[in-house]
Amino acid sequence: MVKAGIIGATGYAGNEIVRLLLGHKDVEIKWFGSRSYIDQQYADIYQNFFKLVDAKCMDDNMAALADEVDVIFTATPQGLCASLINEEILSKCKVIDLSADFRIKDVKKYEKWYGIEHKSPQFIEEAVYGLCEINREDIRKARLIANPGCYPTCSTLSIYPLLKEGLIDPNTIIIDAKSGTSGAGRGAKVPNLYCEVNESIKAYGVATHRHTPEIEDQLGYACGQEVMINFTPHLVPMNRGILVTAYASLTKDVTYEEVKAAYDKYYKDEFFVRVLNKDVCPQTRNVEGSNFVDVNFKIDPRTKRVIMMGAIDNLVKGAAGQAVQNMNLMFGFDENEGLKQIPMCP
Amino acid sequence: MVKAGIIGATGYAGNEIVRLLLGHKDVEIKWFGSRSYIDQQYADIYQNFFKLVDAKCMDDNMAALADEVDVIFTATPQGLCASLINEEILSKCKVIDLSADFRIKDVKKYEKWYGIEHKSPQFIEEAVYGLCEINREDIRKARLIANPGCYPTCSTLSIYPLLKEGLIDPNTIIIDAKSGTSGAGRGAKVPNLYCEVNESIKAYGVATHRHTPEIEDQLGYACGQEVMINFTPHLVPMNRGILVTAYASLTKDVTYEEVKAAYDKYYKDEFFVRVLNKDVCPQTRNVEGSNFVDVNFKIDPRTKRVIMMGAIDNLVKGAAGQAVQNMNLMFGFDENEGLKQIPMCP
Amino acid sequence: MVKAGIIGATGYAGNEIVRLLLGHKDVEIKWFGSRSYIDQQYADIYQNFFKLVDAKCMDDNMAALADEVDVIFTATPQGLCASLINEEILSKCKVIDLSADFRIKDVKKYEKWYGIEHKSPQFIEEAVYGLCEINREDIRKARLIANPGCYPTCSTLSIYPLLKEGLIDPNTIIIDAKSGTSGAGRGAKVPNLYCEVNESIKAYGVATHRHTPEIEDQLGYACGQEVMINFTPHLVPMNRGILVTAYASLTKDVTYEEVKAAYDKYYKDEFFVRVLNKDVCPQTRNVEGSNFVDVNFKIDPRTKRVIMMGAIDNLVKGAAGQAVQNMNLMFGFDENEGLKQIPMCP
Amino acid sequence: MVKAGIIGATGYAGNEIVRLLLGHKDVEIKWFGSRSYIDQQYADIYQNFFKLVDAKCMDDNMAALADEVDVIFTATPQGLCASLINEEILSKCKVIDLSADFRIKDVKKYEKWYGIEHKSPQFIEEAVYGLCEINREDIRKARLIANPGCYPTCSTLSIYPLLKEGLIDPNTIIIDAKSGTSGAGRGAKVPNLYCEVNESIKAYGVATHRHTPEIEDQLGYACGQEVMINFTPHLVPMNRGILVTAYASLTKDVTYEEVKAAYDKYYKDEFFVRVLNKDVCPQTRNVEGSNFVDVNFKIDPRTKRVIMMGAIDNLVKGAAGQAVQNMNLMFGFDENEGLKQIPMCP
Repeated sequence: MVKAGIIGATGYAGNEIVRLLLGHKDVEIKWFGSRSYIDQQYADIYQNFFKLVDAKCMDDNMAALADEVDVIFTATPQGLCASLINEEILSKCKVIDLSADFRIKDVKKYEKWYGIEHKSPQFIEEAVYGLCEINREDIRKARLIANPGCYPTCSTLSIYPLLKEGLIDPNTIIIDAKSGTSGAGRGAKVPNLYCEVNESIKAYGVATHRHTPEIEDQLGYACGQEVMINFTPHLVPMNRGILVTAYASLTKDVTYEEVKAAYDKYYKDEFFVRVLNKDVCPQTRNVEGSNFVDVNFKIDPRTKRVIMMGAIDNLVKGAAGQAVQNMNLMFGFDENEGLKQIPMCP
Repeated sequence: MVKAGIIGATGYAGNEIVRLLLGHKDVEIKWFGSRSYIDQQYADIYQNFFKLVDAKCMDDNMAALADEVDVIFTATPQGLCASLINEEILSKCKVIDLSADFRIKDVKKYEKWYGIEHKSPQFIEEAVYGLCEINREDIRKARLIANPGCYPTCSTLSIYPLLKEGLIDPNTIIIDAKSGTSGAGRGAKVPNLYCEVNESIKAYGVATHRHTPEIEDQLGYACGQEVMINFTPHLVPMNRGILVTAYASLTKDVTYEEVKAAYDKYYKDEFFVRVLNKDVCPQTRNVEGSNFVDVNFKIDPRTKRVIMMGAIDNLVKGAAGQAVQNMNLMFGFDENEGLKQIPMCP
Repeated sequence: MVKAGIIGATGYAGNEIVRLLLGHKDVEIKWFGSRSYIDQQYADIYQNFFKLVDAKCMDDNMAALADEVDVIFTATPQGLCASLINEEILSKCKVIDLSADFRIKDVKKYEKWYGIEHKSPQFIEEAVYGLCEINREDIRKARLIANPGCYPTCSTLSIYPLLKEGLIDPNTIIIDAKSGTSGAGRGAKVPNLYCEVNESIKAYGVATHRHTPEIEDQLGYACGQEVMINFTPHLVPMNRGILVTAYASLTKDVTYEEVKAAYDKYYKDEFFVRVLNKDVCPQTRNVEGSNFVDVNFKIDPRTKRVIMMGAIDNLVKGAAGQAVQNMNLMFGFDENEGLKQIPMCP
Repeated sequence: MVKAGIIGATGYAGNEIVRLLLGHKDVEIKWFGSRSYIDQQYADIYQNFFKLVDAKCMDDNMAALADEVDVIFTATPQGLCASLINEEILSKCKVIDLSADFRIKDVKKYEKWYGIEHKSPQFIEEAVYGLCEINREDIRKARLIANPGCYPTCSTLSIYPLLKEGLIDPNTIIIDAKSGTSGAGRGAKVPNLYCEVNESIKAYGVATHRHTPEIEDQLGYACGQEVMINFTPHLVPMNRGILVTAYASLTKDVTYEEVKAAYDKYYKDEFFVRVLNKDVCPQTRNVEGSNFVDVNFKIDPRTKRVIMMGAIDNLVKGAAGQAVQNMNLMFGFDENEGLKQIPMCP
């Protein structure tokens, strides 16, 4: 049995890692880290785990934790993982960081967009960006995984095949994304109250959201040139789910079959990516609770643009599920072990 | 592998049976019955199953189905199962009926509350009421299971221990229940439209709901006398979940510990029933997607009443999950095989 | 023009007073009190008022305010109004207190249920309980109004006629109430976050909720004897609305017409109380945004109980609307001036 | 008093016209047309109007209606108004058509996008497109108003000033729109059921939605050239509200102040259009229940694009409210008479 520790276990992403690992046949959780709730029963904080988890919340002493476990998940605010990690820890156990600390290779870019100093730039190069469908082989050998952001996961997987195949112009990409409210975290803030979110929709972080450079980096790797996009996230009154609607100009006249072939080329053997049937639009309910990514596209012959769409559960493929998928690759388990949850609908 | 057929696979309960059986290691689904969608791909109706189910919808020919499978689930409107079933079918395979056809032992009572003639009264006596926690041994030997209604499941399990132990007066029981909208089914009716349900709550079927006699029967068996209750269901703007708040007068002065002991007496070894810690109120989100029943109680020394509360997922423990639990008992599988889903929260 | 000041203008009830008074032809708001947001533009806090309110938030200096306005609304936590009020203030202007400070005549009962010391017990006797349909004449002459709680308003109006007419046994009353989330206020607390409330329902404050003695007092006045009830509130995933489902044993055999006549006796000339047609259940959507109270009942001949139901918008008739209705009475305006909003549906 | 008749009074838009006209001091409703509910009490269909409307539903005999009223609102499916209208009717009363029948000047374009034959092309030229902020003077003199679609209203008003001022390139406009579910109407269809919409988001009508040519026409008029856009609507789990997020390339380097000045040039005297403060994103909750349009923008200097955002209540400014605003102009009333509802929040 692989032993796992979670730092930040009482956030929504941490709680989801717990849900998934409890159903994983080869892993046991040894450490439920939560600075805010130290010494409280974990199942008192998340009562869905009543009678299923009998453990108290621990502090976030990563060095101590490294002696006890084989893998550490950090589901914590930006900067914490970078401030705790060191060579000794990495020599003892694998680390999967769900924060943004190691996602962006250019430390200056990270510091500019996140507004904080990076405390461990020496590990940035080594860290592998854990988008399994694209970086699978590197992930298998990694000690440190930068688990992708929720929006970047959904955006990149929706756009990747067309960009890689040169079917769209990188300079025309516009991503309009919509997220459920769990993406805003469990902090007690007025804008996240039920009555502030319910029965409303709004954009936020317009032209400034921190996931922008992460998406641009990944799209840039795909097409071999620098990419600058517009990315606009929206807050939707639902618990879970991210929907991406992306627009780009086609580089040439293409048929449905040609574009479909591009998606199939990259995804036909992927368990978690489902390229939907013609004219079926992805909707978040069809992936809820699962690690699936539903993608599809529509060619608009009038404007010579293509509309690319993708849907994920932000807490699963957008966070905890992808983290477990990364862990599976790193430890040689079946890639979908513990991740076969079927989307729950309604 | 046990072979299963589902009649009514495109209703919400049928769809949930599919979700659960796909994760059951000893069962394969051979028949997705749906009169409304014959010959259409099942995964086109429920796109959450895209790439997971490759089968077309079939008719509801129960006789033909009986030759092909070991167990039939009927998730159909009242009257259908009773109109199709016969001795030959029952001699070939087991039947788990999710409708009300075989729940009520007094056929006259059934016909009065449901307003239809019962077509197979000869099987009523044989049918076992599939509330596993109470009728486990009979279920193991049954050919025909009357799978309990959603409200009766939650109501009975919330009240049973105190009634069985004589701690409450049967004539004072009032059950105020609240249900998510999936309980109303997938029929295209104006009152179930999003804009009719959202941002509102109402009672319905006041003093006339058909689950009333079913609950009264079960409570009557528990206390050995006839019971007459008030039962008021309410429609809540959420997909899943039933919450029962039940009131009864205590028959004597009791302490918290005494009442707790009554619950523990019946439920301490039950995997699916969780008696919560003192003063923790059940909430439906903590059982969502799972087969758990969360129960608790509060003594009001001022009025000498006890408030009993229970929460289930109406589609799981209130329908499909309990059906699978019954199947597990009937076929000698572990009772929780395929039913270990951890509640998903948020 | 009557000049009004609001202490606590940035809570949900305060915000609703603003909405209503802006549409009141005889009132202008002179003071938007909000300790948390002093010197910020009120319309920056509640952007629905952008271009409609051009004023900054002020402190809660009630003495200074009394010099500037004719009426003060206090939409503040328990204890604040009692700590600020004094004879001088009351000699200068009228006060409508939306907190519980002056609702309960027995100061010991108040202090026990609220757990705080009452700072101005000398005004309790003078204060008039502002349930307009019942205490109209006293309200007209009052200096200090105790604006009723949301649950007590809906509960009392639903039950009052039957209790007053002796049709139900006061000792058997059980009130099961359901509220939208705005009733929990705008405080930044984890349990009120969108993802904690959405897709769930739960009871809270079981057998201990502070509105219990207030309801008991009012019901007691109606029947002329002490009343002890069970009151159980529930949190519902919607913004607005309270639904009360109340149960009581009938004191004699009665027909639908007799019970209907009891309701009509008290409500037939009431603008805001709508006794619905036979078998129509109140639902909160039908009163949303309005000051209406929809009530109805159902006799259960089997159990000889009656189920009484009522629906209000908790922020309007349950708080701000009733406060304005009280103000209208106190200043001699038409009782429904500024309160003719038609329920918005959907 | 102006006498009004409504054909299609039991749809959501028709119901909203009723709500608004009941609060209009110069109008009385004489005809509640609803083919589906003839002879039923209108307040039985929409119980929010209980005790407020005492009238039965009538048929859709437009000729008979024209003899009785001064203005007819048709809130009906595409094609109905065009099939009923004639010169005699228009000579007797004014007609405000909420369907798309007279919005598009090119009848071939209409017939292609809507897939039906236009029965009254002779009135297309005369009909005035009722976007009051832009066509005010023509509306005052019109007999027949084509009331704008919900998406076109919000899209056009969000983009108009920048296009008119030449600040954006018409060929780069992409509109990503999000709508509450009331926009889908009150028809009993499975995709509009609560459990199908709740907890999900999806795009629909991608590259094919019928509002596309209407938006293109209006934007074309603004910039004096043909415009081709991408328009993608999404279904959001909420009752009301449309949010538009539109993208376009700037034609030159501009400052915040310059773009703001363009909006102010067209909207500074408009009662219903609110240009929000810098960096405040429109959200639908801030306009709910009102006729306001909240717009704002954000310049992205990196991509040299501007993101334009707008929020309306789809049933008010997107349908019934704008219809009443048109009526006010046509009859010489104050433009905001009956439309001063303050947004209700939460």
